[in-house]
Amino acid sequence: MSARPYKWIGTRPNRPDGADKVTGRARFGADFSLPGQLHGRVLRSPHAHAIIKSIDTSAALALPGVKAVVTSKDFPDQPNVTVPAGEMQVNLRDVTRNVMAREKVLYDGHAVAAVAATTEAIANQALALIKVEYEVLPHVIDVEAAMAPGAPILNDQLRTEGIDPKPENQTNIAKRIDFAKGDAAAGFAKAEVIVERKFTTAPVHQGYIEPHAALASAAADGQVQVWSTTQGHFQVRGFCSRLLNIETSQIRVTPTEIGGGFGGKTVVYLEPVAIRLSQKSGKPVKMVMTREEVFRASGPTSGGVVEVKIGAMKDGTIVAAECMVALQAGAFPGSPVGPACMCSFACYDIANIKVVGFDVVSNRPKVAAYRAPGAPISCWGVESAMDMLAQELGMDPIELRLKNAAKEGTKTHYGPTFNRIGLVETLQAAKDSPHWQAPVKRGYARGIAAGFWFNVGADSSAAVHVGEDGTVTVISGNPDIGGSRASLALMAAEELGVDYNKVRPIIADTASIGFNFVTGGSRVTFATGLAVVNATKDAIRDLKIRAAKIWEVEPEAVIWEDGMAKPASSNVGEFEPLSLAALAAMAGKTGGPINGHAQLNAQGAGPGFGVHIVDLAVDPETGIVTIDRYTAVQDVGTAIHPSYVEGQLQGGAVQGIGWALNEEYIYNAKGRLDNAGFLDYRIPVASDLPMIETVLVEVPNPAHPYGVRGVGEVPIVPPMAAVGNAIARATGVRFGDLPMSPPRVSAALDAARPAMAAE
Amino acid sequence: MSARPYKWIGTRPNRPDGADKVTGRARFGADFSLPGQLHGRVLRSPHAHAIIKSIDTSAALALPGVKAVVTSKDFPDQPNVTVPAGEMQVNLRDVTRNVMAREKVLYDGHAVAAVAATTEAIANQALALIKVEYEVLPHVIDVEAAMAPGAPILNDQLRTEGIDPKPENQTNIAKRIDFAKGDAAAGFAKAEVIVERKFTTAPVHQGYIEPHAALASAAADGQVQVWSTTQGHFQVRGFCSRLLNIETSQIRVTPTEIGGGFGGKTVVYLEPVAIRLSQKSGKPVKMVMTREEVFRASGPTSGGVVEVKIGAMKDGTIVAAECMVALQAGAFPGSPVGPACMCSFACYDIANIKVVGFDVVSNRPKVAAYRAPGAPISCWGVESAMDMLAQELGMDPIELRLKNAAKEGTKTHYGPTFNRIGLVETLQAAKDSPHWQAPVKRGYARGIAAGFWFNVGADSSAAVHVGEDGTVTVISGNPDIGGSRASLALMAAEELGVDYNKVRPIIADTASIGFNFVTGGSRVTFATGLAVVNATKDAIRDLKIRAAKIWEVEPEAVIWEDGMAKPASSNVGEFEPLSLAALAAMAGKTGGPINGHAQLNAQGAGPGFGVHIVDLAVDPETGIVTIDRYTAVQDVGTAIHPSYVEGQLQGGAVQGIGWALNEEYIYNAKGRLDNAGFLDYRIPVASDLPMIETVLVEVPNPAHPYGVRGVGEVPIVPPMAAVGNAIARATGVRFGDLPMSPPRVSAALDAARPAMAAE
Repeated sequence: MSARPYKWIGTRPNRPDGADKVTGRARFGADFSLPGQLHGRVLRSPHAHAIIKSIDTSAALALPGVKAVVTSKDFPDQPNVTVPAGEMQVNLRDVTRNVMAREKVLYDGHAVAAVAATTEAIANQALALIKVEYEVLPHVIDVEAAMAPGAPILNDQLRTEGIDPKPENQTNIAKRIDFAKGDAAAGFAKAEVIVERKFTTAPVHQGYIEPHAALASAAADGQVQVWSTTQGHFQVRGFCSRLLNIETSQIRVTPTEIGGGFGGKTVVYLEPVAIRLSQKSGKPVKMVMTREEVFRASGPTSGGVVEVKIGAMKDGTIVAAECMVALQAGAFPGSPVGPACMCSFACYDIANIKVVGFDVVSNRPKVAAYRAPGAPISCWGVESAMDMLAQELGMDPIELRLKNAAKEGTKTHYGPTFNRIGLVETLQAAKDSPHWQAPVKRGYARGIAAGFWFNVGADSSAAVHVGEDGTVTVISGNPDIGGSRASLALMAAEELGVDYNKVRPIIADTASIGFNFVTGGSRVTFATGLAVVNATKDAIRDLKIRAAKIWEVEPEAVIWEDGMAKPASSNVGEFEPLSLAALAAMAGKTGGPINGHAQLNAQGAGPGFGVHIVDLAVDPETGIVTIDRYTAVQDVGTAIHPSYVEGQLQGGAVQGIGWALNEEYIYNAKGRLDNAGFLDYRIPVASDLPMIETVLVEVPNPAHPYGVRGVGEVPIVPPMAAVGNAIARATGVRFGDLPMSPPRVSAALDAARPAMAAE
Repeated sequence: MSARPYKWIGTRPNRPDGADKVTGRARFGADFSLPGQLHGRVLRSPHAHAIIKSIDTSAALALPGVKAVVTSKDFPDQPNVTVPAGEMQVNLRDVTRNVMAREKVLYDGHAVAAVAATTEAIANQALALIKVEYEVLPHVIDVEAAMAPGAPILNDQLRTEGIDPKPENQTNIAKRIDFAKGDAAAGFAKAEVIVERKFTTAPVHQGYIEPHAALASAAADGQVQVWSTTQGHFQVRGFCSRLLNIETSQIRVTPTEIGGGFGGKTVVYLEPVAIRLSQKSGKPVKMVMTREEVFRASGPTSGGVVEVKIGAMKDGTIVAAECMVALQAGAFPGSPVGPACMCSFACYDIANIKVVGFDVVSNRPKVAAYRAPGAPISCWGVESAMDMLAQELGMDPIELRLKNAAKEGTKTHYGPTFNRIGLVETLQAAKDSPHWQAPVKRGYARGIAAGFWFNVGADSSAAVHVGEDGTVTVISGNPDIGGSRASLALMAAEELGVDYNKVRPIIADTASIGFNFVTGGSRVTFATGLAVVNATKDAIRDLKIRAAKIWEVEPEAVIWEDGMAKPASSNVGEFEPLSLAALAAMAGKTGGPINGHAQLNAQGAGPGFGVHIVDLAVDPETGIVTIDRYTAVQDVGTAIHPSYVEGQLQGGAVQGIGWALNEEYIYNAKGRLDNAGFLDYRIPVASDLPMIETVLVEVPNPAHPYGVRGVGEVPIVPPMAAVGNAIARATGVRFGDLPMSPPRVSAALDAARPAMAAE
């Protein structure tokens, strides 16, 4: 790393939320209460697919302590249109049905009714008194089964128009996506080597530690207040506004501290229900999901099928690539098949590409975003196939990737042409890393894979308020799930030239700051960061005007340097520099409070690339895979707070390793989820893994004043293929299906053994 | 009233906080709680004046459930300097000693120690275990006694420098103020009629229904959060920052709904104590005063002495006026003697004026602001004397005032020359009012008095956020004690051209909005209103840019009219107007969120004048005064929400009537307050009074785009003299001392009767 001119950016100061979180003072979703509040609980479907024939809530309502019961009748029906809700495009008909089942239940755990009562025990008792008459229908769980002719149809309004030749047919395929660049068929025709394989992934849950929780208080005049653990309180406001026909200015949403989200807390489950229960009861209503509810009824990411074909010349030049991605969306359309298709081959500069994607409904909870949504699924296929190609060509897997790496000027198959990107530097850094340079230990094998995420810009608002003592508050509207408070404060301190410890970052509620799009897509440090930088510049502009007033000179004659107003040149006059504190103390007399503001739609998000290296051993008896060493290398643009950036790389890698080795939703024959808990749904814990090593490559994003790229998504993309590639090299068996769990690995090795012996 | 061009201003829509307040959803100070909170209680002095020889807290600390005890040792001592705290000028040495007594206790109720415990009962029990050794000193309660030679001295650092010829003497007089205009002695020399009289007032409490309450949570890293019922959360932040040496950016204060303040909630009592208890215990600490504590230890307004002398020609032209005002400040310097002196003769255009004021400490709770602080006291004297003069001259009291009324161009004795003001119009409106026009009923007498308040500007910040559906949130930082939410929303609706019901006003915490000076001095609708108007204009500027972008024209070619962007002329092109909602829906694509901002130090607060008319009867046996009819006439500039303006006039009049007839602090010989409760300290209730009639005179303030003048202070200024003047005319006895309570009235009438019989 070259020496940088920054004082604060790139340092590792204490986290603004650190003390609160380690001392238990931080308040998460379930920590908010209001005087006189009721407790809300949701009755959920035990069936994977059934018609709701009737709901009788009278016995529940008659139970002493029960103050309100709601069913879908309490929610206005919505048109089958896709509109922005808090700027997220959503189908209103589907969203209201996911919040509360209407004609049918579509998955085990689907909300059917909800109760608000004076205690949680009474609310639970009341749920048992609600009589729901179901007509159970055949169900379909898996994506290929759902696409097959004759599959049980979830939504009788879905038609195959634009998908297959009989547009009038009912279908579970909600959408088809096509991307193409060059002529894939012609490319394959001239290819000297072709690899081809089908891959699948199991749906996995985001696994955030904090369950969904919401507290709502509706007033007699229609005003609504909500406290919610969410990645986007403006999205909660937007969704509730749409679903309940309440104007956005009548809803005030305060975000709580958030115990993980990873994309799963970008939509609403409890909030509209809590509001309706509060409206009906006239009391505040608090709702907290159990872990079982989180698994059964909040969005995991898609399971999917990826068919990949790559054609190359013998020197390793890839000349054609093709893939088909079919993603299970859950009960309602909207899998991340779009990003999956975009990311598939984005690491490579390939002349001929064809990508087809399908969005498929089945009787599972509606999926939600999960860290680089879709990308890990397509990249599991593509990066496994790249390893097959490297093996086929006898090439070093890093060299193969370097030979074909996308770079500045590469036109992607999904549209944009890359600006300055850092994949080549990242591959080179991986090659130079201590891990790659170290020999592979006896009994272990090494795999690598690359990964990509385009990163996101979108709308942000920010403000900078200078207190009367010259200390600074930075206001924005994105819940902090990955350290954005620290990164925003660092940028403001750098820009202002003041001590980071004088800058306090605050996340304001939906009323108190202008609109901010969701915390997700690795946009906050980039887009909201840009808003903070601009708001700080706005404050500095004003500070120079104040100094000019005091010195009786023109504002242009004042510069801002080292946290002080100074004369631009000796021609201006002899003036002692005025510090921020000095100007703040005189604010009233020079024009009033000193605040800076900015709002923007951030353009130019910098694409991110990562390369992961893993050394592992496979126990041939048990199928247990032991990770010995793991390194995540990534172009992070500029690491504003390197510890947080490293944490993002480590966390993403660990989640990817879980996805690779263990995590899956297990449905029984009745379509009921059998492992709705952390005992049966196994995520990696600290003792499962070595310390994840990180290498931060810094190729600044030219579209951001400090070169910021999003860093949070990329690290979950490569792990599955990196692990799979290492297992293939360890065992000689190339796995196509995730998770590569002990039973599946040992079964595959058992199956492969005779064949291997026979060779 | 002339027809005005406004659509929303001057209408009476529902109050933004109305439903919450009538349904009990509004959360006042004591309604906030945090998980794991402790309860804090204060030990208070039983002595009016004593040295604290020692405090032993060990037994209290040993009590199970007690988590922290604080005394003055837990607060950093402060220098004897006057500095701004949240832009209020305060003496730090005094403020910290008022929050927690240090060397001495200076009044009955003075805080000596505080305890935080798991329950309030334990905290109270712990208070009884704290052993304080006192050395009781002689005390002094009343202002003239405190000024007399040989009086017990409260503060041995106070010297008479600038006050009397021996500057080295100790004194209770903290400050002397002098205002002069022309030559008062020369004026009196040529006067044909002179009236002269000494008047006194008793200290009265603001009588807000909600006691002081605060909740504080201090984090391990020094961050502090406070919820407080206050008129100025930025002042709470400022005071706590100064008193506890915490940077302003480290303290976040959220204002609760406020159940009355009237000036009494502009300072801190509990907040610094709750913070220290929270810091020491590591837990959130909630503190709520009892009513008794409110009376004993929170600021009433001053009692005082006013000596008035007015000289006039026989035609009623006043040629000279003089007054001496001595106000009791309580235990620490800082009575409102300045404003009392400023307001004294401000209603009149008098060539020769001399005003002298004294700020005097005595063994009472430190006074706090109370509605037009000081003005009612000096005006009680001046307006009584004006009535004496009218009687002496045989002139109609309104005509006398009209003859001498201040008007545009009148130079005041305290400095400024009046801009456009409305006293003449107000006197004329009083004359024309149904009340004045009606004959005085048999057995009743009529009094009138005028009153003045200069009104205040100062620092405000505001923001306007346009939601994605085109509804609007207006953010500011002044607790709403008199309807400012409604007035701010009305101005924003008028400016934007949208429905008032689409505009939601929000009071943000100290972090979420820029600095706002205290809600007081009748500044909010004027100053913060100006900030809201400017913020709205800023949003409109941006809205025009968005429309220009969509139409591909220059921003200057777009105008904003009726809530829509329109082409400025037909030359611009044929474009359908774009509504706020349409532009809001396209915000992301046209540049991001639409927000407007403004911050300013508001200049040009418009002085306010009122004239009150009262008809009353006096029962000669009991001394009970019965108000039959009461009308408050006032120049309100422009009545933004007339119902609220009327409410201000009514509320001020009622408080003034209570001050006139009943309210007083009664101290016993030991200097202990004998009537610390609403049973013994009698404020007027609805059944005591007729409906207060109001006449709104509208002489717009030229310094505000909608002509706003403050309206909340003026109405408490005239009532005492209006009532006194009516009593004088009813009984022939001119009262000099407040309150004119039944015992005092009957005693005075008894005393006067033989003399009257002898005539």
